[in-house]
Amino acid sequence: MVAEWKHIEDIMSEEYVGKRVCIRGWIYRKSVVGGKAFVRVRDSTGVIQVVVDREVLGDEIVKTLKDMGLEASVKTCGILVKQPRAPGGYEIHTDYFEIVGTSRDFPIKGNEGIEYLLDHRHLWLRSRRLTEIMKIKHTVLKAGRDYFIENNWWEVTPPILTASAVEGGATLFPVKYFDKTAYLSQSAQLYLEVLIYSLEKVWSLTPSFRAEKSRTRRHLAEYWHLEAEAAWYNMEDMMKVTAELVAYIVDKVLESNRRQLEFLGRKLDVLKRSREPNYPAIKYDEAISILQKKGVNIEWGDDLGADEERILTQEFETPFFITHFPKDIKSFYMKMDANDPRVVLGFDLLAPEGYGEIIGGSEREDNYEVLYQRIIEQGYDPSNYKWYLDLRKYGSVPHSGFGLGIERLVMWIAGLDHIRDAIPFPRYRGRIYP
Amino acid sequence: MVAEWKHIEDIMSEEYVGKRVCIRGWIYRKSVVGGKAFVRVRDSTGVIQVVVDREVLGDEIVKTLKDMGLEASVKTCGILVKQPRAPGGYEIHTDYFEIVGTSRDFPIKGNEGIEYLLDHRHLWLRSRRLTEIMKIKHTVLKAGRDYFIENNWWEVTPPILTASAVEGGATLFPVKYFDKTAYLSQSAQLYLEVLIYSLEKVWSLTPSFRAEKSRTRRHLAEYWHLEAEAAWYNMEDMMKVTAELVAYIVDKVLESNRRQLEFLGRKLDVLKRSREPNYPAIKYDEAISILQKKGVNIEWGDDLGADEERILTQEFETPFFITHFPKDIKSFYMKMDANDPRVVLGFDLLAPEGYGEIIGGSEREDNYEVLYQRIIEQGYDPSNYKWYLDLRKYGSVPHSGFGLGIERLVMWIAGLDHIRDAIPFPRYRGRIYP
Repeated sequence: MVAEWKHIEDIMSEEYVGKRVCIRGWIYRKSVVGGKAFVRVRDSTGVIQVVVDREVLGDEIVKTLKDMGLEASVKTCGILVKQPRAPGGYEIHTDYFEIVGTSRDFPIKGNEGIEYLLDHRHLWLRSRRLTEIMKIKHTVLKAGRDYFIENNWWEVTPPILTASAVEGGATLFPVKYFDKTAYLSQSAQLYLEVLIYSLEKVWSLTPSFRAEKSRTRRHLAEYWHLEAEAAWYNMEDMMKVTAELVAYIVDKVLESNRRQLEFLGRKLDVLKRSREPNYPAIKYDEAISILQKKGVNIEWGDDLGADEERILTQEFETPFFITHFPKDIKSFYMKMDANDPRVVLGFDLLAPEGYGEIIGGSEREDNYEVLYQRIIEQGYDPSNYKWYLDLRKYGSVPHSGFGLGIERLVMWIAGLDHIRDAIPFPRYRGRIYP
Repeated sequence: MVAEWKHIEDIMSEEYVGKRVCIRGWIYRKSVVGGKAFVRVRDSTGVIQVVVDREVLGDEIVKTLKDMGLEASVKTCGILVKQPRAPGGYEIHTDYFEIVGTSRDFPIKGNEGIEYLLDHRHLWLRSRRLTEIMKIKHTVLKAGRDYFIENNWWEVTPPILTASAVEGGATLFPVKYFDKTAYLSQSAQLYLEVLIYSLEKVWSLTPSFRAEKSRTRRHLAEYWHLEAEAAWYNMEDMMKVTAELVAYIVDKVLESNRRQLEFLGRKLDVLKRSREPNYPAIKYDEAISILQKKGVNIEWGDDLGADEERILTQEFETPFFITHFPKDIKSFYMKMDANDPRVVLGFDLLAPEGYGEIIGGSEREDNYEVLYQRIIEQGYDPSNYKWYLDLRKYGSVPHSGFGLGIERLVMWIAGLDHIRDAIPFPRYRGRIYP
């Protein structure tokens, strides 16, 4: 049949009451009472109750609906009626009801364990909760890019397949690349540094890969990474970009995804405070003394783990920076602080409410000899960094950059317990299916 | 020194003549004549001539500049002067000139062979030509996404690491994934098909990977793939989306990148004709008879290779579709034509001027039993497709989708000879560095 198909969200209004409308979607809930079937149909925009009356459409369809499982796909047309008892306040009294794709014994009933649900992720993704999270992620991705585009940064496409096992060899995924071994990129940073010599301010949004052996609530083996790098920027300039970016994204989600945040039960007060980019900053030294005062057994020079980060987040009501970390716990490419050579000009941005690190960035070492020494100091082979060192040999410039973990940010904004729900098909040790 | 740094493009105007301006960038060309150095400085926006006079700045800087190689980074301030003989019509008479990062013997002089240049890609990317191409790609990526966002398609993030060697096992890259073997995704399609059951119209922009053994002008082992999938769409609906998308992108490039296209010597007539989405379509049958009339040795049932595509492009002055291919040369998931079961409801979009395929799409088989049979027919194991088959078991819907190769499209729009220049760090057999 030819019909003007509408989205459910669009017809749920006074304007359509008494008019004939046609929708299509999937059976979300149903009950058959006497000669009537009450079928809740969902599409990508909402849910509406459809009343199938055997007086109108005959016995057979009501009988079929009794047997039909959830998630069958349907097309239906009928008159829109106000009905305060129906969810959303409207229902359709149908005169046309077609089952397009049947569904018997849909494998998810609602009481399954997490591993079973993850094995059925291809069906679980139809759940309202995961759908609402994906809609929030859509806004996060769009807003993240828009911030850079509106501020005249160039988008570039750095490689995923890389030649040598550089930093963090233990967490690299090896790939059989024709007759060689290549590795999946953990960060585009080194390649973005190349591109600032022609485009000055660049960004990329790519998958990044880390073969994390431990399974935690905030690690994925494959995640989306929004990275930026700019010539002539120092650490403070780049922290400003970072805060503006996050505030911009939070603002856009609050603007576009109220319904989703409400459905997820997300409290909005912290998000509302975070739409202004005036995020506080503390130095690593200060972080250590806060932790020590709280009785944490930690010393200057120790790295901050998830537990320490969680404790620190109790001190803040918006995202906040930690800066000036000891050089030995940070990467070789971070520029040392001229005023205190024990620390580097690096910064992390932590999300509040216990979430912790969502961004890491730094000013980069731009001096050839210093960088060469730092590579050796950290136990790497400078010959693996030939092209990277070349950038300091031919017209080096001061520059800074950072990387944001998209799923970490979605996790905080949506208030999720586990990062796996911030991505449709999560990948971590033990999980590659579906 | 603290200065208000300007971009070169922004100061090249009457408004700044006689005013003092400050710029920073890299030495692009230089000559020293008598007591003056004429230094052309480039930044991400343009090139300007800077005149360094020893009468103003002393002997030393002019001597230093004589020795300094190309690509040193500099900061300079001075009065902007009209100068018809200078490129762009303006020059800066400098009173401040600082070399930030030295450069001696820049490894690219201009007469090197292609393999040498590719080995020095990290420096070659500073060339004007590659920079202009990357700026065109920026627009292509942005416009491709904007088309979907403006038309209310949801962006999703399908996985790169996938479980089983499905279609095209010979061109898959295996990854050591913890204690298992995984494979790099060749297409997000199967995962996008999952997501239409909740979001209806979805798209993604991800890297895709094909271990192509042959080296051609139009294949990369790693490329960017813009893919879309929609519930309730048939082949014609999806061809319409495809044509609108490409026309939209071409229009945006013509709007934003005239300077880049001019620099590359791109003829604009074909692009201008292609900004309207009324692209012609022929059936595979017709393509075969065109080729046969031109003396090509080809029969019904043969696949179209690059040579055949090139010949067909001579018949058209915009992108054009070929549809209804024999089912045996196309993937198992394409829906068979009810009117002619020898062919499938698949389409390719070919770029004119010899470029050939940039998009492949189809209506998908939505019937469980037919799909199961097609998997067996093509020699695959249905047990590898359990979750994919599930989609047809629980509320199946008619649907269609397509994939666009971003670098193929950039290659055509920018008029490139070789696809490697459409990506900053090309990957293909024999090339993984830098």
